[in-house]
Amino acid sequence: MIRFDTDYIEGCIPEILEALQRTNEEQTEGYGMDPHCDAARALIRKAIGREDADVHFLVGGTQTNITVIDSILKHYQGAICAESGHINVHETGALEATGHKCLTIPTKDGTITASQIEQLILDHYNGPSVEHTVQPGIVYISFPTESGTLYTKQQLTVIYAVCRKYDIPLFIDGARLGYGLMARTNDLSIQELANLCDVFYIGGTKIGALFGEAVVILNEKYKKDFRYNIKQRGGMLAKGRILGIQFEELFRNDRYFAISKHAIDLADKLAQAFKEKGYSFYFPAETNQLFPIMTNEQMAALSKDFIFSTWEKIDEDHTAVRFVISFMTKEEAVDELIAHL
Amino acid sequence: MIRFDTDYIEGCIPEILEALQRTNEEQTEGYGMDPHCDAARALIRKAIGREDADVHFLVGGTQTNITVIDSILKHYQGAICAESGHINVHETGALEATGHKCLTIPTKDGTITASQIEQLILDHYNGPSVEHTVQPGIVYISFPTESGTLYTKQQLTVIYAVCRKYDIPLFIDGARLGYGLMARTNDLSIQELANLCDVFYIGGTKIGALFGEAVVILNEKYKKDFRYNIKQRGGMLAKGRILGIQFEELFRNDRYFAISKHAIDLADKLAQAFKEKGYSFYFPAETNQLFPIMTNEQMAALSKDFIFSTWEKIDEDHTAVRFVISFMTKEEAVDELIAHL
Amino acid sequence: MIRFDTDYIEGCIPEILEALQRTNEEQTEGYGMDPHCDAARALIRKAIGREDADVHFLVGGTQTNITVIDSILKHYQGAICAESGHINVHETGALEATGHKCLTIPTKDGTITASQIEQLILDHYNGPSVEHTVQPGIVYISFPTESGTLYTKQQLTVIYAVCRKYDIPLFIDGARLGYGLMARTNDLSIQELANLCDVFYIGGTKIGALFGEAVVILNEKYKKDFRYNIKQRGGMLAKGRILGIQFEELFRNDRYFAISKHAIDLADKLAQAFKEKGYSFYFPAETNQLFPIMTNEQMAALSKDFIFSTWEKIDEDHTAVRFVISFMTKEEAVDELIAHL
Amino acid sequence: MIRFDTDYIEGCIPEILEALQRTNEEQTEGYGMDPHCDAARALIRKAIGREDADVHFLVGGTQTNITVIDSILKHYQGAICAESGHINVHETGALEATGHKCLTIPTKDGTITASQIEQLILDHYNGPSVEHTVQPGIVYISFPTESGTLYTKQQLTVIYAVCRKYDIPLFIDGARLGYGLMARTNDLSIQELANLCDVFYIGGTKIGALFGEAVVILNEKYKKDFRYNIKQRGGMLAKGRILGIQFEELFRNDRYFAISKHAIDLADKLAQAFKEKGYSFYFPAETNQLFPIMTNEQMAALSKDFIFSTWEKIDEDHTAVRFVISFMTKEEAVDELIAHL
Repeated sequence: MIRFDTDYIEGCIPEILEALQRTNEEQTEGYGMDPHCDAARALIRKAIGREDADVHFLVGGTQTNITVIDSILKHYQGAICAESGHINVHETGALEATGHKCLTIPTKDGTITASQIEQLILDHYNGPSVEHTVQPGIVYISFPTESGTLYTKQQLTVIYAVCRKYDIPLFIDGARLGYGLMARTNDLSIQELANLCDVFYIGGTKIGALFGEAVVILNEKYKKDFRYNIKQRGGMLAKGRILGIQFEELFRNDRYFAISKHAIDLADKLAQAFKEKGYSFYFPAETNQLFPIMTNEQMAALSKDFIFSTWEKIDEDHTAVRFVISFMTKEEAVDELIAHL
Repeated sequence: MIRFDTDYIEGCIPEILEALQRTNEEQTEGYGMDPHCDAARALIRKAIGREDADVHFLVGGTQTNITVIDSILKHYQGAICAESGHINVHETGALEATGHKCLTIPTKDGTITASQIEQLILDHYNGPSVEHTVQPGIVYISFPTESGTLYTKQQLTVIYAVCRKYDIPLFIDGARLGYGLMARTNDLSIQELANLCDVFYIGGTKIGALFGEAVVILNEKYKKDFRYNIKQRGGMLAKGRILGIQFEELFRNDRYFAISKHAIDLADKLAQAFKEKGYSFYFPAETNQLFPIMTNEQMAALSKDFIFSTWEKIDEDHTAVRFVISFMTKEEAVDELIAHL
Repeated sequence: MIRFDTDYIEGCIPEILEALQRTNEEQTEGYGMDPHCDAARALIRKAIGREDADVHFLVGGTQTNITVIDSILKHYQGAICAESGHINVHETGALEATGHKCLTIPTKDGTITASQIEQLILDHYNGPSVEHTVQPGIVYISFPTESGTLYTKQQLTVIYAVCRKYDIPLFIDGARLGYGLMARTNDLSIQELANLCDVFYIGGTKIGALFGEAVVILNEKYKKDFRYNIKQRGGMLAKGRILGIQFEELFRNDRYFAISKHAIDLADKLAQAFKEKGYSFYFPAETNQLFPIMTNEQMAALSKDFIFSTWEKIDEDHTAVRFVISFMTKEEAVDELIAHL
Repeated sequence: MIRFDTDYIEGCIPEILEALQRTNEEQTEGYGMDPHCDAARALIRKAIGREDADVHFLVGGTQTNITVIDSILKHYQGAICAESGHINVHETGALEATGHKCLTIPTKDGTITASQIEQLILDHYNGPSVEHTVQPGIVYISFPTESGTLYTKQQLTVIYAVCRKYDIPLFIDGARLGYGLMARTNDLSIQELANLCDVFYIGGTKIGALFGEAVVILNEKYKKDFRYNIKQRGGMLAKGRILGIQFEELFRNDRYFAISKHAIDLADKLAQAFKEKGYSFYFPAETNQLFPIMTNEQMAALSKDFIFSTWEKIDEDHTAVRFVISFMTKEEAVDELIAHL
């Protein structure tokens, strides 16, 4: 059985294991104040072209989302997000557990538009009893989205313009950031993205690391005391250098982008094969997550040799399924899958 | 200008003011442990035919909803409710501020069905990553709903059957309970309702009192330590007898039902008039809230003499508006409104 | 039996009942936006000599404390308070339930000092792992304290100077404010107090009203969006005018101060009697709460005719008890108590 | 410079790095459902002699504490703990951020007694206004304590008896569990400890692992739905096997105990040296944390070559400092330190 169900089924890039080995006996300060974290911060600042950015390393995605969002919101504010947004559907209400409502926007492909966001804000402030409803306090989008789709530079630019117009910060969940940036259909550089939001995070768990996410705070207003938030939400790793070492290796020599591209190339090859075999897609095939629609027979046949996820039942005979390619996926595995189509 | 915008624009029934006067110099225990609260509890237990019920008096609706729901839910559980449910749209995220997500169900008229509830529960437990989503922990419905509509005895019976099947309690928000029970279309008695849920509350603020809601806990499991919840959520009135006195007067001689019927009779008269004048309704006209659809001209004309609420813009020319009749509405006011239609 | 156990055992001043009667049929806007709330706000602003103050009416003390404090604190901040502070000991952890720790300071008589506050702040910032401990974010004191004692103008001045030095707001719990201001030992006017803090509240529940507390926000920084906080915490009364009417009557013709003085005069008379009979006091007798120390025999004898509270067991034979005089206490009741001493 | 400031300044045991290398290309289920987590669970169950135990792997200590405690407490309950308890002083109010108060007990050496616990419980239930104070809902102790001291079998037995008497669960924070179990003064086996509490955790971060803590739930009542809690609090690692692999290596061949003993042997050697040089200890020297009292000159001299922590200023001339030995501390480092004393 070969797994294609998600992009966190394997370990990490070999350079990280080597670095952990190499540094194992070093004695360093704890809680992210060590030289490896500092070096990783410097590499990330350079990669994004923003020397003024604050960079913090956290353990996982859910933790990162609630730590960032709750650090920004007042307790009567909520987070604008797509109905399919990770914070709304796959974090066991972690955001609500910090006291905040998800203010959801309908979406077909995982993206939301600037005008939807503006309308939600206007509806709130123009409503008859404004204080009786949750005030929009942040906009949360994922790049790529949970459906594997992307925002264009133009779309992100107008979203951020709306955010600035209403003085509401924009936070980009980059759990799969690299896969988005390396996508053929993408027209955004990481430097541009960093200038089109207030906070974003660079996902390590799904791209090259054993675990870890790098929060990048661009807006001065949200930098103060962020470490208190990390500690209170349980995200401050005692041996913080383990995170620093990983991001050091990921951003040394642009490895993060190279391994992302590896996944995207294989995903494109697989998407092409699906198309050639006549499969249609439930969501546009843009990044490392592919959502072909299959008949029950096709699903049953493939399930003998491959593990993938059921996404959405379309009708009695058809189901949208998900195949995910990761930084560690081998070309032979993809070829074998293609051979089975 | 005559106000029809809501049912909390006036004071209370005169008997309450007399009782406050009469009891003003009495010295009593605080926090709801006084003889008036006890007498009111006895009257309510008798009215609902459940001697075993626990009855607590709280100050307002939002407070009551979060106190009850948060006392029952575990922190990874959410409340199943209609998209239009008060807890979801008009309480400034008070429930989320106690840590719980609203698990919403689409609705056209404010009601949700047993099969929608069951489907939501099944979707949760059959999902691929059950612990990554919020567990349904309570069902919240309003009787009447926020749209002025009602559940029939049959509908409530099957909803409660689903709740028992999955061991999820049912909580009924009765902010306008009396108006629902006295509606012509209603086929539920308060005794039947009390046997078809685990907790409900009897709204005083909108029906006869200056303020106050009576929480009735039927299910033994949810009785323990409830007073801690009230205190922690800021709902334990020091001079608790003020609440007891009010419910004593409301439930003495079935006044609560009589004043509710007064409102319903006037609402029916008004609804009839709307229909005769050719207005259609946005929601079925069942209780004391009426939602006629008006043209811009009709709205403008009526706005000169009457205050009412805009509910939903239908199209360029039409808007659904809301007229609310209360226990204190005078027949002459309704007649004057009818004359203006 | 005559009750002296607390100051919320009776109703309200007669003028409030008359006003409720007089206004009962008025139709007004809800949620504190009515003319009575506006009039009460104007009277309070005038009384405190601060036309720029925001005034909001809430239902009870616990609710007021958490609404104010949580509106100001970030989620990693806590409230500096006396160990005996109401928020720390008598609110069922309501503040913690909003996410905030009480940072307590030892006290003998209920007061804390400027230097204790400064030391706590310095200890936090000079600690080895500052982000691992709760950041002090507000100072909470009660005037009078829970022990019935007072801060002098000099003490409050230096406390507020420390607060400004470290940019930490000062919030004064005035549940019994009137009794403090009218105390013989008091040297602070309400105008001076209003200039020596950022937010305070004027207690109505224990002084003249059926219920209700008036929050006064002096510092511009904490005014924005405060109504969202009130609503979310369940403190926004639908018939908000009931609060407005009460504070209108309390502050009309300085009644609030007159009725407070009535209580203080009787308390002084009682304190004098205790002293003459040889009783010593557990806390200095300054306001309407007296804490004489009694032998078991004395307690048993008085318990036949009077209700009062046990405060603290001193030794096998002695107990500190509490007698509380209220705005409604009759001179005859005090005389009868004195006769029994 | 040689660091002795804490026990999380280095990496992990070499076997873990080897295992990470060896398993890096394996494809496994995420979120702790993989074979390595299962194998680690089996090893732990065997080590503690409780086949019925539920074992969960979390990332860090603060996260573990709040996840366990908040999963057990109702929202009006608090955690009984020592004033010096980690949850009370070094977690940035993480527990309060989940809504719960720390109910603290004074301590000199980090331990609390059964009679102190019982008194606190009785004081709550015998108080005059029980619902106005936080209900004790769990007892939290650390083994070893934050002061490096231990509970004897007898002490733990009577503490647990009190817990069972009042039906309040006992949770043991075992961040440094191994160091406690291997201490010369310890008379508890891990099997006995597992039978004297409801939940405990086995610390990996400070003993052998890169990071990770193993929660062991013994009481059936607290097992249900625990994974929801983990996910909601951000503790569910996507590549959960990284935790499983670590605990597999730690508990294979009793390594956890062997490496703990290594630290304890060195700590004993160092403690002996301190004593011989005439140093007294601020807390009894029992485990891997030593708190000798030094003069300013001694501190200054040692600071040239060694890093250690300042704990508490004793007087103008003396300070209690902390030296910590870890599983990775080299005997030569200790010898060098001893040579400098």
